Amino acid sequence: MREKRYALTIAYDGTSYGGWQRQPNAVTIQQLIEEALQIATRESLKVTGSGRTDAGVHALKQVAHFSSNKPLNTERLFVSLNGLLPRDIRILEINEVSDTFHARYSAKVKCYHYHITLGPVQLPFDRLYSWHCRERFDIPLMRQAATLLVGTHDFTSFANEPNMGSVAKNPVRDLRRLDIFEHETGLRLEFEANGFLYKMVRNLSGTLYEVAVKKRDVKSVAHLLEAKDRKLAGRAAPPHGLFLAWVDYKEAIDSKVG
Amino acid sequence: MREKRYALTIAYDGTSYGGWQRQPNAVTIQQLIEEALQIATRESLKVTGSGRTDAGVHALKQVAHFSSNKPLNTERLFVSLNGLLPRDIRILEINEVSDTFHARYSAKVKCYHYHITLGPVQLPFDRLYSWHCRERFDIPLMRQAATLLVGTHDFTSFANEPNMGSVAKNPVRDLRRLDIFEHETGLRLEFEANGFLYKMVRNLSGTLYEVAVKKRDVKSVAHLLEAKDRKLAGRAAPPHGLFLAWVDYKEAIDSKVG
Repeated sequence: MREKRYALTIAYDGTSYGGWQRQPNAVTIQQLIEEALQIATRESLKVTGSGRTDAGVHALKQVAHFSSNKPLNTERLFVSLNGLLPRDIRILEINEVSDTFHARYSAKVKCYHYHITLGPVQLPFDRLYSWHCRERFDIPLMRQAATLLVGTHDFTSFANEPNMGSVAKNPVRDLRRLDIFEHETGLRLEFEANGFLYKMVRNLSGTLYEVAVKKRDVKSVAHLLEAKDRKLAGRAAPPHGLFLAWVDYKEAIDSKVG
Repeated sequence: MREKRYALTIAYDGTSYGGWQRQPNAVTIQQLIEEALQIATRESLKVTGSGRTDAGVHALKQVAHFSSNKPLNTERLFVSLNGLLPRDIRILEINEVSDTFHARYSAKVKCYHYHITLGPVQLPFDRLYSWHCRERFDIPLMRQAATLLVGTHDFTSFANEPNMGSVAKNPVRDLRRLDIFEHETGLRLEFEANGFLYKMVRNLSGTLYEVAVKKRDVKSVAHLLEAKDRKLAGRAAPPHGLFLAWVDYKEAIDSKVG
């Protein structure tokens, strides 16, 4: 049989894992999905994600692909995988895609959300999903800084060297949208770009935090972009506030399964 | 100094605890709050809740009281307690109340929420806070059954014998409201009454579930109330879908702290 390619849409709570990508000393989401696929299909299949997420980072709709040359019933596989996986990792959809689909290289736009709780107390139910900031936030200042960051820039100042895998050769990204939504208990920052450098969203969030609490001047944000020096930007915001929200592809991968 | 009484408003994630009430073989919320109070006030103070919640049950606004004859700075105590308690238990408010205030006996109305996720997959973020039901639900039938339950009834058929503490002498309760709200991922049942018998909300939720999946006739719900026999009602719905939402008192306990 000709090899066929499938896309998985996956939600996970990253709290208990060493991130997406397989690694020697921690349980990872990629590993558990590959192990479940092996049991369900009796094949050893490699799963490629749209990108890694770090330890503690969550996903609403991560996308990954794998290929198989055995016949696969996607509806049955959907039930098997969700039966085999722990309840903090859920397969939302399985779709057959074209041979050329690649979860990472076919991605057009990605969106991340960063959650911040404001005020003296954080509800227990938000503790694993939102960064608690007790300081007084100047949200108009934060919005000014966000405006400076939107657009096509060299984001070197906001990129970490990954400790595994390759460094991006081209540090220019088009940050198409950076919205700050206020709600009853805090803020949700939404970042939409054609791609992100390693730790870029957490570094941007940490810098916006510093502007909001007046540890950093709004104007310094423009200088930061120009300087192309990671040492100047703010501390990375903690991982548990970060969600990979969705990935958009050249090819539609939605269907009725799930 | 004359003894003063204080009301605590408390939110907790019940996942890791053996419930509200102190017991020999499990860590409980009452115990951790009493231990934190002892460290913060250097007094051994007894905390009385509006009622117990079982292992795994959550609270948005549980209320408890304690008394002290030492001077207490409630704003400082608020910061200390939240510093001492684990992040899945949060003190939302501390208010001085009248000498006659009693978290249990002064309660006028209590409200519980029960969360149900419908459909083939439950998001990881709901797994600890909502009962996942994969079956097809007939929600109009469920609403009919709910209508039969609202009002002043003897709820014996929906009460368990508590394994600790005293059985309620009078099993008549006024269920003032039982609303079923539909949202994107499932249902939220809201129960409002002048008081609840032991496991009553979970037993009512389990019975409504049986009606929704057509394991039980709508009409049988009226018979159930008449029969006053626990063995006839449905299985208790699991604890992790249940939230004590709020308690209303004769005396207002809200303030600016928190």
